[in-house]
Amino acid sequence: MSDHPTINDIGEFKLHQIIKDILPNSSKNILVGIGDDAAVIQPLHSPMVLTKDAMVEGVHFLSQWTTAADLAYKSLASNISDLAAKGAQPAFGLIALGLPGNTEIRWIEEFYQTLAKQKNVWGLEIIGGDTIQSPQLMISITAIGYQQIQKPIRINTAQPGDWIFITGTVGDAAAGLEILQDQNKSEKDLEDAFLIQRLLRPTPRLKEALQLIKLAIPSSMTDISDGLARDLPKICKASGTGAAIIAASIPCSKELREYACDPISYAWKGGEDYELLFTLPEDQAKQLLETWDKEDCQITNIGLITSTSDSIQLIGRGDIQNSGFDHFQQR
Amino acid sequence: MSDHPTINDIGEFKLHQIIKDILPNSSKNILVGIGDDAAVIQPLHSPMVLTKDAMVEGVHFLSQWTTAADLAYKSLASNISDLAAKGAQPAFGLIALGLPGNTEIRWIEEFYQTLAKQKNVWGLEIIGGDTIQSPQLMISITAIGYQQIQKPIRINTAQPGDWIFITGTVGDAAAGLEILQDQNKSEKDLEDAFLIQRLLRPTPRLKEALQLIKLAIPSSMTDISDGLARDLPKICKASGTGAAIIAASIPCSKELREYACDPISYAWKGGEDYELLFTLPEDQAKQLLETWDKEDCQITNIGLITSTSDSIQLIGRGDIQNSGFDHFQQR
Repeated sequence: MSDHPTINDIGEFKLHQIIKDILPNSSKNILVGIGDDAAVIQPLHSPMVLTKDAMVEGVHFLSQWTTAADLAYKSLASNISDLAAKGAQPAFGLIALGLPGNTEIRWIEEFYQTLAKQKNVWGLEIIGGDTIQSPQLMISITAIGYQQIQKPIRINTAQPGDWIFITGTVGDAAAGLEILQDQNKSEKDLEDAFLIQRLLRPTPRLKEALQLIKLAIPSSMTDISDGLARDLPKICKASGTGAAIIAASIPCSKELREYACDPISYAWKGGEDYELLFTLPEDQAKQLLETWDKEDCQITNIGLITSTSDSIQLIGRGDIQNSGFDHFQQR
Repeated sequence: MSDHPTINDIGEFKLHQIIKDILPNSSKNILVGIGDDAAVIQPLHSPMVLTKDAMVEGVHFLSQWTTAADLAYKSLASNISDLAAKGAQPAFGLIALGLPGNTEIRWIEEFYQTLAKQKNVWGLEIIGGDTIQSPQLMISITAIGYQQIQKPIRINTAQPGDWIFITGTVGDAAAGLEILQDQNKSEKDLEDAFLIQRLLRPTPRLKEALQLIKLAIPSSMTDISDGLARDLPKICKASGTGAAIIAASIPCSKELREYACDPISYAWKGGEDYELLFTLPEDQAKQLLETWDKEDCQITNIGLITSTSDSIQLIGRGDIQNSGFDHFQQR
């Protein structure tokens, strides 16, 4: 056994004990939690929102840049973001983790300790999962929340004339990735650190979503995980509409504007910012802009839903209009 | 584009459309189903059982022996088996599928078409998931069911003196795997076909579990996925008990007895049979043996829970007592 024992050294039983010790269950609505074959919960009467994500090393993240803590943080954050986009308060999580047998126990401890901290930040309990051997590091999270409004927020209910909003700024994570990939750039500036942080530690807009639904129920909402250029068409295709976006109105951070010659290109094409993209009828949109508390996170109107099915216009930047990221097609 | 288009050829949007078309949602308790970012359901008042499994090509299955239909069948079956062991009626499933970009569309269609058939067999609706690019084929299923009894069935509540039962026969799947791995065996006998089928198409004991809980509530229950030699200690460790098993009483199929010189060794060590392993106090155990309907699936008493913490005795076969399968340690 080396100085840093691996899963191969300790085996499955001890591994599960370590995880159970780091992630005890407390909520009274959990009848059976981690450590059994399956979890048992007593559901509330509210509608439940369920989402499931999977990420694989080499495709969705690279171990060389992503610590165990980063991975735990981000994989949970991306699921919290999905719940936020449905106006749901997180409640439960199940984690499947695929690990090479030579993974060090301290890596696993760091992963689950970060998860334990983050679950408290977002108010959910980890009630179960699976830890398996896998040649590639991979993770799949199922997150479950309770919808905080009566009717579900869908992606297929945007209407022509609706105003299109996004929270925060976009393009930062794409720039962060580029900085990490740039092998000539060993010295990182302050703005680099911000952009990298936006990639590795995105803030899911849960607080903003819960604030939003108190002020106005979006006619559609999604989170920007694949980039505006791909997530906006998702709403439009599902709703049978088009959209017209004023390129110059897309909010970019000061740091992105300092880093990039063409920040709008990053903001349009870049994924993984986990900002919210939502639509509202004009009257509610105007009212929202007046009442929104800008202190923590701005919201920006970037354009309009149009009736031209499947047509997305990026006004002022036709040159980058039809771009975006497809995990399958662009590799 | 070749004769058989791949995901790389059609991209993510079309892929999601194909899946959505094969798996439409129908239940009125599904407020938002497949095709949105997240699912929304209206839960019943009963306690919910949640389980999450993950399987990776090369570790948990081999593509050369496992068709898309086999994989869909088995990955769902193993989750149904987890719900059965909790006395739960399946209700919802979420599927994350990781696929190499060169996976043919017809493979994906076969996978989801099988899933669509099987979900009807088990009475659950597929409400969402994720389809991602992955160098290895991998699958993670979250299955959710409603507990059909008041108190959860746990793995940590076996009592000394309880009788230990298993459904059906064990060891078949391990023999099936050996037959597939035996490159010298190109001709397969009839019993080989049975054993291989038990590996690739295991029958989760849902009907039996639901019959059982009407007759008697087990003091503990689990499904045999890793083999008796590993799943029985799980119950014992969690319950702080030991167990004494009469090796000769472990039920083996006629086919296994014909195939193997030492069928008990397969039955003890072999995993993936997905039979139920449960315990009952003596009086209820005796009553169960009298009332159990043997027509479809036998149940067999194989031994007793003992008070000697952590000690598993395999009476008559001390030579194979301390064996079993650890995905991490035995590779």
